[in-house]
Amino acid sequence: MILCTTITELKAALARQRSKSPNGFVGLVPTMGYLHEGHASLMRRAGSECEFTVVSVFVNPLQFGPSEDFDRYPRDLERDAALAEHNGADLLFAPSVSEMYPTKPLTRVLISEVTESLCGASRPGHFDGVGTVVSKLFNLVQPDRAYFGMKDAQQVAVIQQMANDLNMPVDIIPCETVREPDGLAMSSRNVYLEPEQRKQALVLSHTLQLAGELLLQPAMTAGELLRAAIANIRTAPLAVIDYVELLHYPSLRPLDPERKLAELHDRLILALAVKFGGTRLIDNRLFQPAGGEPHVQNHDEIQAASGNRH
Amino acid sequence: MILCTTITELKAALARQRSKSPNGFVGLVPTMGYLHEGHASLMRRAGSECEFTVVSVFVNPLQFGPSEDFDRYPRDLERDAALAEHNGADLLFAPSVSEMYPTKPLTRVLISEVTESLCGASRPGHFDGVGTVVSKLFNLVQPDRAYFGMKDAQQVAVIQQMANDLNMPVDIIPCETVREPDGLAMSSRNVYLEPEQRKQALVLSHTLQLAGELLLQPAMTAGELLRAAIANIRTAPLAVIDYVELLHYPSLRPLDPERKLAELHDRLILALAVKFGGTRLIDNRLFQPAGGEPHVQNHDEIQAASGNRH
Repeated sequence: MILCTTITELKAALARQRSKSPNGFVGLVPTMGYLHEGHASLMRRAGSECEFTVVSVFVNPLQFGPSEDFDRYPRDLERDAALAEHNGADLLFAPSVSEMYPTKPLTRVLISEVTESLCGASRPGHFDGVGTVVSKLFNLVQPDRAYFGMKDAQQVAVIQQMANDLNMPVDIIPCETVREPDGLAMSSRNVYLEPEQRKQALVLSHTLQLAGELLLQPAMTAGELLRAAIANIRTAPLAVIDYVELLHYPSLRPLDPERKLAELHDRLILALAVKFGGTRLIDNRLFQPAGGEPHVQNHDEIQAASGNRH
Repeated sequence: MILCTTITELKAALARQRSKSPNGFVGLVPTMGYLHEGHASLMRRAGSECEFTVVSVFVNPLQFGPSEDFDRYPRDLERDAALAEHNGADLLFAPSVSEMYPTKPLTRVLISEVTESLCGASRPGHFDGVGTVVSKLFNLVQPDRAYFGMKDAQQVAVIQQMANDLNMPVDIIPCETVREPDGLAMSSRNVYLEPEQRKQALVLSHTLQLAGELLLQPAMTAGELLRAAIANIRTAPLAVIDYVELLHYPSLRPLDPERKLAELHDRLILALAVKFGGTRLIDNRLFQPAGGEPHVQNHDEIQAASGNRH
């Protein structure tokens, strides 16, 4: 595996790869590092579909608010490099902040509407930073395919919207959330959790499971489902709810709370953000209510819905 | 010359070209059509430096304000195609508005600071539309080089800033303004001018010439130069000044009006926007005061200053 910390090295390595294999797909797995099995699964998927897999590790200051955890966000490049290599990455790009922003950046890629709910509402400016840095990484790597975990379902929706709107020559590949054996969605932020917080954090995945069962009731409305989800999260005394929302996906438009879910044909997302002490966790589940059988994100469907620009 | 009106056709034609000639440079000349000798000079330059020259013709609604001339902006695709072919274009891309914006676009590429003076101040939102559509065209065509006329010097500065900030894999090539034999800068909007307006419009290029002479005076200050320029424009009774500004280039930061220009080492721009009836004309000239000898835009210098990201 090639390790690059500068743009010059990255471009040289990509040029060598492309001259060696002009038609080989290049895959990109953009990360903020402190890699876990969720990232590893993205790399393995990229490796299975692309000839050359680039993993980027960059904790992007633009997407953190002033009171957020940019400084304390966990970092361990040595471990990340070992994990990436072990999972088939061909190149690890780990630039410094000054390499990515050598001068004050004056350009922002702003996405509206899909960014206005959920994490976009809780973290003002977050998705401006995400859109901007992902644009930069796409321009630097010029991947054929880019892989993102569905734990950040809104991020996937936002990036797909941006890629469609700006005709970016890349396929956005959403990948299923990877969970710990007990159901907790994998996250680099899980390391922050104290043992009792870690235990109570299971309320997120349990709530998503409960919602899947409630959705089978023919008269269940959006409002009822939300109230049940909120009540369930509140059974965990350390849980402080940031948001619990049921929305259309990927538009992230709100639902009429009186509407019977069984009558809807759109894909829906139940999205949760819950704090345990200083640690904010997110999780979500996609549902297809009209099918009767709720099912979690289906990649082919998501791709078909979002449109393939190639 | 290939004529494409859809993105599918464009991508197919570019793929054919790239498979035929994987290492050949692709040049892009983005235009709003109603092509004139200024555009033709960009195409000839692209043709001399690139193996395959793409000209886009698209009157982009996003960059026009609600009270501006989007609807009446002159269009003549047949004539444009003939001119492009005659000047060596290999492909003309002329999409409809619905081809470029098939759904409501939610993504904007916003550039701050360099967009806040001159046309950015007079035309709120203009450069958001320019940044967005140029991003789209760059992603669609993936050119190695893109050619822009220096008549829109702020546009060149804005696009260079955007390309640098977002690591766009394209070289921005500024090209000298082309003028009518009597000095009027070529513009698609010149067709709007009544005969008497056309005559008085020469005051723009005359003012830029006068400024070049005044700059040779060792004690000349920024404020004095501006006052002289404004007074000169006012000798044309039909001229209504939108702005007359002397700024650093390409940062477009303001100058201290008391400062003696001979003491400055930065490149400067004198930029004019003047209305004749409903027609708004722009023109500008770059100066290098410290050299004593004022000289108009030098391409190599501009490129060296803006940095080549390849």
